[in-house]
Amino acid sequence: MTGALRRALLEGLAPAAVVEDVAPQVDGGRFAVKRVVGEEIEVTASAFAHGHEKVATALRYRGPEDKSWTEVPMEPLGNDRWRAAFLVDRIGEWSYCVATRVDPPAASGSSLAAESPAYPAWVDRERARCGAWYEIFPRSTSPEPGRHGTFADLEERLDAIAAMGFDVVYLPPIHPIGHEKRKGRNNSTLSAPGDVGSPWAIGAAEGGHTAIHPDLGDRNDFRHLLRSARLRGMEIALDIAFQCTPDHPWVTEHPDWFRHRPDGSIQCAENPPKRYEDIYPLDFDTPDWKALWTALRDVVAFWAREGVEVFRVDNPHTKPFAFWEWLIDDIRRDHPRAIFLSEAFTRPRVMHRLAKLGFSQSYTYFTWRNTKAELTEYFTELAASPSREYFRPNVWPNTPDILPYPLQGAGPAAFRARLVLATTLAANYGIYGPAFELAENRPRDPGTSEEYLGSEKYELKRWDADRADSLAPPVTRLNAIRRAHPALQSDWSLAFHSTDNDQLLCYSKRSGEDRVLVVVNLDWRNVQSGWVELDPAALEIAADAAFTVHDELNGERYRWSGGRNFVMLDPARAPAHVFSIAP
Amino acid sequence: MTGALRRALLEGLAPAAVVEDVAPQVDGGRFAVKRVVGEEIEVTASAFAHGHEKVATALRYRGPEDKSWTEVPMEPLGNDRWRAAFLVDRIGEWSYCVATRVDPPAASGSSLAAESPAYPAWVDRERARCGAWYEIFPRSTSPEPGRHGTFADLEERLDAIAAMGFDVVYLPPIHPIGHEKRKGRNNSTLSAPGDVGSPWAIGAAEGGHTAIHPDLGDRNDFRHLLRSARLRGMEIALDIAFQCTPDHPWVTEHPDWFRHRPDGSIQCAENPPKRYEDIYPLDFDTPDWKALWTALRDVVAFWAREGVEVFRVDNPHTKPFAFWEWLIDDIRRDHPRAIFLSEAFTRPRVMHRLAKLGFSQSYTYFTWRNTKAELTEYFTELAASPSREYFRPNVWPNTPDILPYPLQGAGPAAFRARLVLATTLAANYGIYGPAFELAENRPRDPGTSEEYLGSEKYELKRWDADRADSLAPPVTRLNAIRRAHPALQSDWSLAFHSTDNDQLLCYSKRSGEDRVLVVVNLDWRNVQSGWVELDPAALEIAADAAFTVHDELNGERYRWSGGRNFVMLDPARAPAHVFSIAP
Repeated sequence: MTGALRRALLEGLAPAAVVEDVAPQVDGGRFAVKRVVGEEIEVTASAFAHGHEKVATALRYRGPEDKSWTEVPMEPLGNDRWRAAFLVDRIGEWSYCVATRVDPPAASGSSLAAESPAYPAWVDRERARCGAWYEIFPRSTSPEPGRHGTFADLEERLDAIAAMGFDVVYLPPIHPIGHEKRKGRNNSTLSAPGDVGSPWAIGAAEGGHTAIHPDLGDRNDFRHLLRSARLRGMEIALDIAFQCTPDHPWVTEHPDWFRHRPDGSIQCAENPPKRYEDIYPLDFDTPDWKALWTALRDVVAFWAREGVEVFRVDNPHTKPFAFWEWLIDDIRRDHPRAIFLSEAFTRPRVMHRLAKLGFSQSYTYFTWRNTKAELTEYFTELAASPSREYFRPNVWPNTPDILPYPLQGAGPAAFRARLVLATTLAANYGIYGPAFELAENRPRDPGTSEEYLGSEKYELKRWDADRADSLAPPVTRLNAIRRAHPALQSDWSLAFHSTDNDQLLCYSKRSGEDRVLVVVNLDWRNVQSGWVELDPAALEIAADAAFTVHDELNGERYRWSGGRNFVMLDPARAPAHVFSIAP
Repeated sequence: MTGALRRALLEGLAPAAVVEDVAPQVDGGRFAVKRVVGEEIEVTASAFAHGHEKVATALRYRGPEDKSWTEVPMEPLGNDRWRAAFLVDRIGEWSYCVATRVDPPAASGSSLAAESPAYPAWVDRERARCGAWYEIFPRSTSPEPGRHGTFADLEERLDAIAAMGFDVVYLPPIHPIGHEKRKGRNNSTLSAPGDVGSPWAIGAAEGGHTAIHPDLGDRNDFRHLLRSARLRGMEIALDIAFQCTPDHPWVTEHPDWFRHRPDGSIQCAENPPKRYEDIYPLDFDTPDWKALWTALRDVVAFWAREGVEVFRVDNPHTKPFAFWEWLIDDIRRDHPRAIFLSEAFTRPRVMHRLAKLGFSQSYTYFTWRNTKAELTEYFTELAASPSREYFRPNVWPNTPDILPYPLQGAGPAAFRARLVLATTLAANYGIYGPAFELAENRPRDPGTSEEYLGSEKYELKRWDADRADSLAPPVTRLNAIRRAHPALQSDWSLAFHSTDNDQLLCYSKRSGEDRVLVVVNLDWRNVQSGWVELDPAALEIAADAAFTVHDELNGERYRWSGGRNFVMLDPARAPAHVFSIAP
């Protein structure tokens, strides 16, 4: 026992009533739980006193800028457990605690309220919970073959992207690209004249992280793009990639921000097994780290002041945790609407730590979860484990780095199945387009690497977005279904239903009376059929209920019951049912 | 984010490597985990840094009086989880923490070790983990009918109690009993001349909590009793019941330690539905609480100085938590061998809080768990839930207060079955004797109250301990089995095995190579038979292994396999198998 505790006990400073097991909380309040505006935080706690003393228990909460607690009584649930909830109606940091005291109050220690620690909650705007992301390289949007695309070219594509129903248009880095050690096509360490290099190789004579690649446009063009997106109900997400080419201005201005070998050279970046010969990592442990950290914070602040409110952060797991925790907190003081997506496809605990310390959303392992067992286990964890209090999934069936093996050489049906999974399993999802909707399936090294053949990271592409076999129609339909159904706009209600066929995955989501039931054929080559056994409790329907399910993909209607129902899915026709259930 | 955290981040005081999820711990280190001397504490933790940094992780631990940490490296278990263990070889308060740092150390924050909070562990002597308790009223040990028994009479019984294999002889309060409002037989509020009253009605002209009832003997007789028990390998446990009769000296010496009604009278004690008309509760909230608490602490210290090292605490849940936390800690500073058993048959969270704050052992709900489902669920919780780190069960099939309904009017076979359950399900158990081994089954109010008819709480009893049908032989045998089998001397290895008959309960315990397998017929009236399906993993045997099981109760041997085995149990003959398994 600590001396402080011993003194408190003897001085009568230990309250007679105790509070235990307050939920939700992350690591005892070290980190914030996450919510979005308009949601409730439901707080439960154990509170009791000795003997037959009655206790009165209250939830106290405080919103951003509130000077004092608002207190609401908690209701007893039995077994000394209590419950209350409060609405979070403003963006920012909230906090809450549970206080209890013997009621009616007695003398000495009995009159002291046993207040739990205060637990923080970070409340984001709604976009943090739900959004459809579209990743696109502006430089590949030129309608003229061989010409470098511009922000203006991208603006010409915005109507089509908006028509597909996307919320966020995410751009790879838009900064000047280094010339020294520039990568050639297919990640060659030798570049040919005319090679455009990787957008993640940031920095050249024209400037660094706050400069714009001159071939894309200037700052006014960028501002115009932001406005154009906003007019279409979309927002632009920028890529934050804290690394430098050998010709980034910082390499000469701040040589001590990089780690030098004894011969004076600088080791290139690595994210094993990948090597980035065209990139120097920053040395976050430099003696001048305060200036470095501040400069990097200023990069984000610069773009936030330009009006960017969504940031996709490249490889955050290779930088110190403390750096991100400080940076995100600092940016949010002036820009509380900022959303940060963590691109950390790394070890689970590292991904979770990044989510805890402040990232609004996280890329997940969805990209590599393909079988019924894998998807069921992983999404049950995402939707139902305690980590859901801080870890918001954003699922991607592909990225410029990743053409997953199951999609290599696969037909459009495979892409459609993954699209249905991404759009309906997770409230936040994204695709790297137009590669995705054009079902681009050619790998550089089939079966041994996830790189695309002729990766857009290293060359200008010209995509024929209007191709007749584009998957834009199902993308459009699925985004429309997501917007029409609140059930698909959050993650926690996900429930899986059993099927007698391992190729058929069935799950549902609910929001109030809105119910969506999905059955996906995971086998894109063959017709699969089987019996689905609905869990009526998960759907909150009567066990023997009969009801009409309406396939929102093709308009068909079926009569289903709370028990077993037959399903047959021909991937050539439709890889999935996405049913709404009529009440 | 707190200002302190923000400053720490900006000042580079946040370590690069982090420690999370240290186990074991109770409420983040607010309370101690419990062990006994000779056990290990196995510590696991998550520890990692960003990127590809390696971390070195160490367990630090410190025993009582150690001035500094002992440090041992932790071994990686994969997925950023680490493990190490240390032996606790002395009684007292230990502590441990996990420290990690980037390895090799880099500059600034990276060189800081990320040390977890220090978690306390209280290490008891072995008796806290395992012991057989025998509760007996000294006043009922006289061989002469109608004479009040004495400590000397009890000494005459010690050989028989020791021969049955008990470790602890627990005495109800031994203090002077009040005369005012003394209870009569069967809890009558009117006492007749010659009625002896309840031992829990403490205090009379002869003295209070540090005095000895003159009819039992004097202080020298008590000291002699302690020595006699010790010579037989047993120890005496006293009852700590902090309450007073109207004629307790404190009522006049310290009237402010009691809560007075407006008319000056004092409300009697209650523990609903029970009323104790002969007892005044102490007012722990009195303005003079410091003097009261100190006086009560001094009561325990007095008996501890007399050599008593085991205390059974009566109704601790009706006194403030802070009082017990302080008292137990204080007593242990001078008497670290002290063991405190909490008699709190109350709400689960209150029982658990008392265990957390320092009680070494706790009475449980075993007394009311009878069916296979009830026993399986409850003992799984006791043996396998996180509460096992602090909650040590001590199970009682009966007490002077409780003749459970299933034993009311039941035959000896019912008592034998409950005895097998108590002795083999829990390492600590106790019986209230000789009522138990004489299968005393007569209730005062059959089916509506658990009181014994002619309860020993209110009258002298004369037990014929040598009765031919006494259950002393099976008690003796089971205590001998417990001493011979380390598997039965701790609780955590308990595993249940399925049977196809709801009246057959099967479970096993292990310690190293020692394996005990128990099958109990829960139906004391009928022969029950069925198939037991052994879980080979729980027994750590090969799934197809054949082996000999030796029934330690009757010496019979059977050939069993790792799979299904047939069992038939006739309660008239034996209510259970208690098998040891030959390797």
